[in-house]
Amino acid sequence: MVKPSLFLDDLTIGQTWEGGPIIMNEADMIRFATEYDPQPMHIDPKAAAEGRFGGLIASGWHVAALVMRDFVDAGAFGDTPLLGLKVDDLEWRHPVRAGDRLSIVREVVDVRVSRSKPDRGVLTMRMTVTNQDGEVAMSFLNLIQMPLRGHQL
Amino acid sequence: MVKPSLFLDDLTIGQTWEGGPIIMNEADMIRFATEYDPQPMHIDPKAAAEGRFGGLIASGWHVAALVMRDFVDAGAFGDTPLLGLKVDDLEWRHPVRAGDRLSIVREVVDVRVSRSKPDRGVLTMRMTVTNQDGEVAMSFLNLIQMPLRGHQL
Repeated sequence: MVKPSLFLDDLTIGQTWEGGPIIMNEADMIRFATEYDPQPMHIDPKAAAEGRFGGLIASGWHVAALVMRDFVDAGAFGDTPLLGLKVDDLEWRHPVRAGDRLSIVREVVDVRVSRSKPDRGVLTMRMTVTNQDGEVAMSFLNLIQMPLRGHQL
Repeated sequence: MVKPSLFLDDLTIGQTWEGGPIIMNEADMIRFATEYDPQPMHIDPKAAAEGRFGGLIASGWHVAALVMRDFVDAGAFGDTPLLGLKVDDLEWRHPVRAGDRLSIVREVVDVRVSRSKPDRGVLTMRMTVTNQDGEVAMSFLNLIQMPLRGHQL
């Protein structure tokens, strides 16, 4: 069931959503990285085991893509498209491995109406991706363009 | 043929590499977005044609993943792993559509030896992704951990 559409005016700083869990799967990690980031640490379990991480780790871009999928699936914004303008301060802070169980917190950190186009604005959320041991694997700021209520972009 | 490995000390501010071309393909755009960013603007040509972009556009994360693949394939750093620590100032500035031909410029903008661990440091590159019409589709800063010559991380 589609949730009610959210508009920029519906959002307040400090509001949070929880996402996940994302369970990491070795076959999917290798499949993604074979296509988009084919380095031994991401696609070759034997070479990865001998390397500095002692085993296969996910491409950081794969983790980012899975976090996006979770965001879409959550459907918290209803029919309002999630139109990314910008990402800032994206850090891959801890390796992600097969079997990891990632949870996500999305927190509104800024809500800003456009000065030049008063029908829209920018929502900034901090995304924090944490593994089953409480270690932050990845975090970033996600700036999304959103319409104000009564408008459509 | 693998190019010689590069180390942090080999790199200088202003050094550039060109990458691409990446030719965008509608089937691949839909396949990526179906798995990682299943919004109508990315997976449904008919809905996308009626929306604000007047046609299907690539998921921004897909473009980022393709730029990573191009970076790995270019092999400019030889066997030195491309270990992303951080991305900053990532902007999706122009929609990317099927048939677009993207070229990439990677420019060294900072080279910094770690104060606490003198065997390594951080390379910062500005990645600029331009389409066939000279429009910048995407740009970001990519911070990569690299060893100094004679070391291995």
